[in-house]
Amino acid sequence: MPTSPTKIAVAYSGGLDTSCIIPWLREHYDADVVAVVADVGQGDRELDGIEQKARSTGACECVVMDLKQEFLEEFAFPMAIMGSVYEGRYLMGTSIARPCIARAQVTAALQTGCDALAHGCTGKGNDQVRFESTYAALAPQLAVIAPWRLPTWNLRSREAMLDYLAVRNIPCAASKEKLYSRDANLWHISHEGGDLEDPWKAPPEDVWMLTTSPAQAPDQHQDVTISFKGGFPTAVDGRTMDSVSIMNTLNAIAGRHGVGRIDLVENRLVGMKSRGAYETPGGTILMEALRGLEQLVLDRDTLHWKQRLALEFGDHVYNGTWFTPVRAAMWAAAQSIAQVMDGDVVVRCYKGTSAAVRRRSPNSLFSQNFATFGQDEVYDHKDADGFIRLFSLPSRIRALKQNIATQDLAR
Amino acid sequence: MPTSPTKIAVAYSGGLDTSCIIPWLREHYDADVVAVVADVGQGDRELDGIEQKARSTGACECVVMDLKQEFLEEFAFPMAIMGSVYEGRYLMGTSIARPCIARAQVTAALQTGCDALAHGCTGKGNDQVRFESTYAALAPQLAVIAPWRLPTWNLRSREAMLDYLAVRNIPCAASKEKLYSRDANLWHISHEGGDLEDPWKAPPEDVWMLTTSPAQAPDQHQDVTISFKGGFPTAVDGRTMDSVSIMNTLNAIAGRHGVGRIDLVENRLVGMKSRGAYETPGGTILMEALRGLEQLVLDRDTLHWKQRLALEFGDHVYNGTWFTPVRAAMWAAAQSIAQVMDGDVVVRCYKGTSAAVRRRSPNSLFSQNFATFGQDEVYDHKDADGFIRLFSLPSRIRALKQNIATQDLAR
Amino acid sequence: MPTSPTKIAVAYSGGLDTSCIIPWLREHYDADVVAVVADVGQGDRELDGIEQKARSTGACECVVMDLKQEFLEEFAFPMAIMGSVYEGRYLMGTSIARPCIARAQVTAALQTGCDALAHGCTGKGNDQVRFESTYAALAPQLAVIAPWRLPTWNLRSREAMLDYLAVRNIPCAASKEKLYSRDANLWHISHEGGDLEDPWKAPPEDVWMLTTSPAQAPDQHQDVTISFKGGFPTAVDGRTMDSVSIMNTLNAIAGRHGVGRIDLVENRLVGMKSRGAYETPGGTILMEALRGLEQLVLDRDTLHWKQRLALEFGDHVYNGTWFTPVRAAMWAAAQSIAQVMDGDVVVRCYKGTSAAVRRRSPNSLFSQNFATFGQDEVYDHKDADGFIRLFSLPSRIRALKQNIATQDLAR
Amino acid sequence: MPTSPTKIAVAYSGGLDTSCIIPWLREHYDADVVAVVADVGQGDRELDGIEQKARSTGACECVVMDLKQEFLEEFAFPMAIMGSVYEGRYLMGTSIARPCIARAQVTAALQTGCDALAHGCTGKGNDQVRFESTYAALAPQLAVIAPWRLPTWNLRSREAMLDYLAVRNIPCAASKEKLYSRDANLWHISHEGGDLEDPWKAPPEDVWMLTTSPAQAPDQHQDVTISFKGGFPTAVDGRTMDSVSIMNTLNAIAGRHGVGRIDLVENRLVGMKSRGAYETPGGTILMEALRGLEQLVLDRDTLHWKQRLALEFGDHVYNGTWFTPVRAAMWAAAQSIAQVMDGDVVVRCYKGTSAAVRRRSPNSLFSQNFATFGQDEVYDHKDADGFIRLFSLPSRIRALKQNIATQDLAR
Repeated sequence: MPTSPTKIAVAYSGGLDTSCIIPWLREHYDADVVAVVADVGQGDRELDGIEQKARSTGACECVVMDLKQEFLEEFAFPMAIMGSVYEGRYLMGTSIARPCIARAQVTAALQTGCDALAHGCTGKGNDQVRFESTYAALAPQLAVIAPWRLPTWNLRSREAMLDYLAVRNIPCAASKEKLYSRDANLWHISHEGGDLEDPWKAPPEDVWMLTTSPAQAPDQHQDVTISFKGGFPTAVDGRTMDSVSIMNTLNAIAGRHGVGRIDLVENRLVGMKSRGAYETPGGTILMEALRGLEQLVLDRDTLHWKQRLALEFGDHVYNGTWFTPVRAAMWAAAQSIAQVMDGDVVVRCYKGTSAAVRRRSPNSLFSQNFATFGQDEVYDHKDADGFIRLFSLPSRIRALKQNIATQDLAR
Repeated sequence: MPTSPTKIAVAYSGGLDTSCIIPWLREHYDADVVAVVADVGQGDRELDGIEQKARSTGACECVVMDLKQEFLEEFAFPMAIMGSVYEGRYLMGTSIARPCIARAQVTAALQTGCDALAHGCTGKGNDQVRFESTYAALAPQLAVIAPWRLPTWNLRSREAMLDYLAVRNIPCAASKEKLYSRDANLWHISHEGGDLEDPWKAPPEDVWMLTTSPAQAPDQHQDVTISFKGGFPTAVDGRTMDSVSIMNTLNAIAGRHGVGRIDLVENRLVGMKSRGAYETPGGTILMEALRGLEQLVLDRDTLHWKQRLALEFGDHVYNGTWFTPVRAAMWAAAQSIAQVMDGDVVVRCYKGTSAAVRRRSPNSLFSQNFATFGQDEVYDHKDADGFIRLFSLPSRIRALKQNIATQDLAR
Repeated sequence: MPTSPTKIAVAYSGGLDTSCIIPWLREHYDADVVAVVADVGQGDRELDGIEQKARSTGACECVVMDLKQEFLEEFAFPMAIMGSVYEGRYLMGTSIARPCIARAQVTAALQTGCDALAHGCTGKGNDQVRFESTYAALAPQLAVIAPWRLPTWNLRSREAMLDYLAVRNIPCAASKEKLYSRDANLWHISHEGGDLEDPWKAPPEDVWMLTTSPAQAPDQHQDVTISFKGGFPTAVDGRTMDSVSIMNTLNAIAGRHGVGRIDLVENRLVGMKSRGAYETPGGTILMEALRGLEQLVLDRDTLHWKQRLALEFGDHVYNGTWFTPVRAAMWAAAQSIAQVMDGDVVVRCYKGTSAAVRRRSPNSLFSQNFATFGQDEVYDHKDADGFIRLFSLPSRIRALKQNIATQDLAR
Repeated sequence: MPTSPTKIAVAYSGGLDTSCIIPWLREHYDADVVAVVADVGQGDRELDGIEQKARSTGACECVVMDLKQEFLEEFAFPMAIMGSVYEGRYLMGTSIARPCIARAQVTAALQTGCDALAHGCTGKGNDQVRFESTYAALAPQLAVIAPWRLPTWNLRSREAMLDYLAVRNIPCAASKEKLYSRDANLWHISHEGGDLEDPWKAPPEDVWMLTTSPAQAPDQHQDVTISFKGGFPTAVDGRTMDSVSIMNTLNAIAGRHGVGRIDLVENRLVGMKSRGAYETPGGTILMEALRGLEQLVLDRDTLHWKQRLALEFGDHVYNGTWFTPVRAAMWAAAQSIAQVMDGDVVVRCYKGTSAAVRRRSPNSLFSQNFATFGQDEVYDHKDADGFIRLFSLPSRIRALKQNIATQDLAR
């Protein structure tokens, strides 16, 4: 690792923190700074004019990478197919974006000849671990700089940061006050801080950004049909679309009906609990649809094992250990299972609820007219006799043994 | 096992099927029949006058057992504490009642000197397995009669059954048509058959019985506060109540807001898929509240392990293998964990949705004012440096080794 | 399913049982019988002249299939790579052969135009389930005949069977007495019955067939080097060989040193316990070598997850549910992991023991000269400070919270 | 946490490292030092005169605690009952002692009014984590001093340490050379370093201390009978003994026959691999006996679940997270299961091998004379028909559905 980096690739969002980090890195390391912007669908408000902004803060270069499609197809959709949900609630929109962004940052760093990587994550969160786990797996030879963890980083309030920029005549539109800390992409938006820090308070309505309040949502439900091939969505309401359009469409529909709000006190990887509010409108109905499809096409052993697998896979997503052999192996298993996940599912959205109400598949194992197979061909009521006898045999043996032993003792 | 039983205890519901089974058993085995009625909260409509009804069909005795409290405290609440949900959806109201009912039936059979047990479950369902697994564990010496699986049972339509009763002058109020097959208790009601057998059709509105349609539910949300001690509910909205009152109260509130409807294609234990609709109003908000409480009081390792445990425990509930050493061991583990599950959770009900929006506990591990512990006492940002280095060390080593190997190959 | 089969493919071993089954099937069904012989390495003693034997008992055709290579490469070696061991002991030589044999039987049945499949397994064992699970997965349209479970099968002693053949002038060299029931192939031999049925008796020395008694084994240990590529063995002691030769070589070496004897009371799938003795000489050292190799090349998360996977995969092997989506998915995961399992392992054999004592791999994650990476590049002692602080943070928070609560209570 | 500790409790072994730590702590912190000696059966060679030794190095107090019985009964035996083995090999003798020792150290610290805890573990190992995880759980208010991780600790060679003591006129019998790093207690001894650091070298014979070389072991095998009550050993060869005597007896027998040697490349918690050699003579045959007993008394579901549990419990033992809710919950489950683990097992020891060859239990589920239950009472061959039909039903349905689909495609 270089003792003194000369060119640093920083994951740049255009927000206040990373706007300070660019000049700070230049000054502290006497190094060139490359701003790497990952477009994972956070939206134009954040991305418009970002190159100009990066240069104005002192970046020698700004690389903007459109990762929207790979974010969905290599990361978010596989997670949805797997069915992983962190601690029963969180659809992991921030977690799943980190390896995608960090991989792009590493690529840009290597292409622009950087010898160090930097990010603007704080020292108490999960994101620092996710970024640096990806760095370690893909480019262990590059130095890592996490300013927030350095004793020399003293910009620990928005005011201090605004002052820092003002002194350097770096223009910045950020406000002094910020109620919530947020992270957005095509899959979700997260909210932390403010009133959310009291778990005995309900999330205030001003938290939410992507979803209509259920109370304000339409009085008429809306059914949306999602079509799948091998677990990947291919069409919405019969119209074939690319992944990004599918996600935008689902976000719009679900958001309109107030679907996808999550409120959770969660265990961070770094050992403490935090309370977060999340909106994953399109992701929520995509997950619902996938689960509805699974019901039709996966047999019991497969589905139950996949449910356990989803828990373990989810920890890897949350922890940012995406580029690891075990995570890859789990996905190999899920891909094998997902081969039969073809079909259509109708999800009904209404005032915050979403439920798969119809589903069909060429690979369905359900048979409405089961009898048409012929009773002797597939199932005979009397088969259950033997099944139950053997299924309960261990209990029967134990009970008989105990009775005999009891009688022995009783004599 | 007796080749010819002389006194048979039958699990009697008062419905058409078991009303036929009593005379049928008497005639086929020349045996006395004891009707055992388990009151698990299915309601007065089913229970009123049931003793009289049982005797009028030929039972020599009718034993009515009030199991409501033990059903909740020994079966349903432990399942809720464990957090088991079958195939991600089904709250297992029918499954969890079966060992409770079957145990009472065995007790009544032994008390009344029966040498056989009978039930009215069909040969393609799960319930036969659940009943007979309990029989095997608790009274393997008693014979088991499952009329529906016998070639001599030829009452295979409602019409045939009504004729059978009419010929014998046994009064019966049952109708010839029955759209859905249902099972009810304090925890839930299930619906199968009819239009539900087509998974490409949404459940028709006439299916539902315990819950208002979300579209008809109040326009104003309702917050309900549930208090817990060791995971067991002790009060609703501040009023301390017994278990049965708590359940009735929660069912009323949730039902009014359309909460607790489930629509699922599930894998039966006996190897085929079936589609069911379920209503578990009170159970849904109780589960939601417990999960909200867990978020506060369980550390990550404990919660994540409990989630896996819940999947495995759920299979035992669904399969009816309640009276087994492994199921008991899992519950011993959950009890150990649940010691800290004290506190209050507010669940918000609105048009089919229910969400824990507030939670507090004397055993909370969440700290809003985390900083008050003092930075050096609990967490120092720089601790994350070392944590991440070691957390990602295996990835780093692998990558470094591979780089070295790659360079070797490149020469 | 045909009510009356006209041509039946029977899994034929040449032993007394299946020698009776051929004429019995012909007579009872008035059907042609095709004898299907699977060569999975059981040895010449069983296979010599088997075609002639089959025809002399009445088979219209005898199909001998050499499955030795596919048995190892598609079944036994994958199981060894996975590391599955049933109930901590049994290396599943019989279990793993069944899907291979049954698949070949189905192929032969379809090629010869049969409409039914038959096997000679008894009604209390696992093998009937393994055979018929494969039939169900690969050829559900064919009828299944399991004579031992039929009330019409009355040849329930060796004497009855010998008489049956004698009456029909079918020559048979089988003896009236048979101490143990055995099953052999390239991977192992199993022994059941006789004195083994008392678990309070040690296995008598006359049980064992493939392995020298440790007490008679050479006084000098022997080191054997096994080389692997992607987890599959490729060479022994430096000599590259095909799979069958590798297995024969390993069996010879291990057998000479008394390695691979197993004595176990196991849980059968059909609900009862049985006691078996097994010899898996070559398999034992192959498994030992693979575990030694894993130690070098798999990181902790991967190895620990694979250990859990091995338990679940093992149940599928034991139960005969090989041709199922979940089993295939697990193997997809293991294959992904096994990509790095290249290298050499030396296993030391001595008087019944075998232990991996040396191992090396191009993909080793172990570093003898760890320091050569440079302390700052890979590991700094002080990193452990932060790691331990965060690793134990949940315990610290819980303890601090409890102390505070205790103090509160103490006032 | 105190910025400057005034009285420090150090885990003292009497070895060179901790002999230096006492004066070093006194000098660096100007603090009193209490030496806490945990007797976990490491033997007189280490313990003789240790109080005198501690004082001569500057300890103001030396507390010797006999933990042998609690080490076995609260830690080692529960681990053995659980059946946890780390990475398939390591019986975790060092890991399991750490929480026992650290708890005693905390107790002594609180009793002697200390405000800090210190240990002599290095910064690359697991033991530092195990010690400090226990500290965090039991006494988070005490400061923790880990000299080896401090930049001010510069005694990084045996020579430097010997010089350090010589300058201070502190007598020390330690030698300049030490081939292996070792840790011993009643359960095992571990060896690291020296030639062991090359995994391509077999462990040299001079490594081993507790076990005779198999080649030198007696030519005659020895059978040892261990009796159990609830999983805990109560007698050896029919003689009832206390736990410590049982362990000493088993160690002597197994050691004489060369049983219990382990050679392993393992994954440390701190992210790197290391190679260790271990001797666990008595533990090996105790584990073997317990597994033999389980075979008789645990049904399939229970045993298979316990095997998965053992893997997860083992990680907690290895990682030192003993005093955590999840570890306690797992043990609650295991205790529930172990209630039936009564009986006797004979383990045969011979030249490095040990195998349970006989086992009996009043709770045995095995039945030699199974038929004596009567065929119709417990098992009827024809029951298997129905069992297999339903067991393989998912495969059959899938295959039939696919055939139909295939035919459709074929038209």
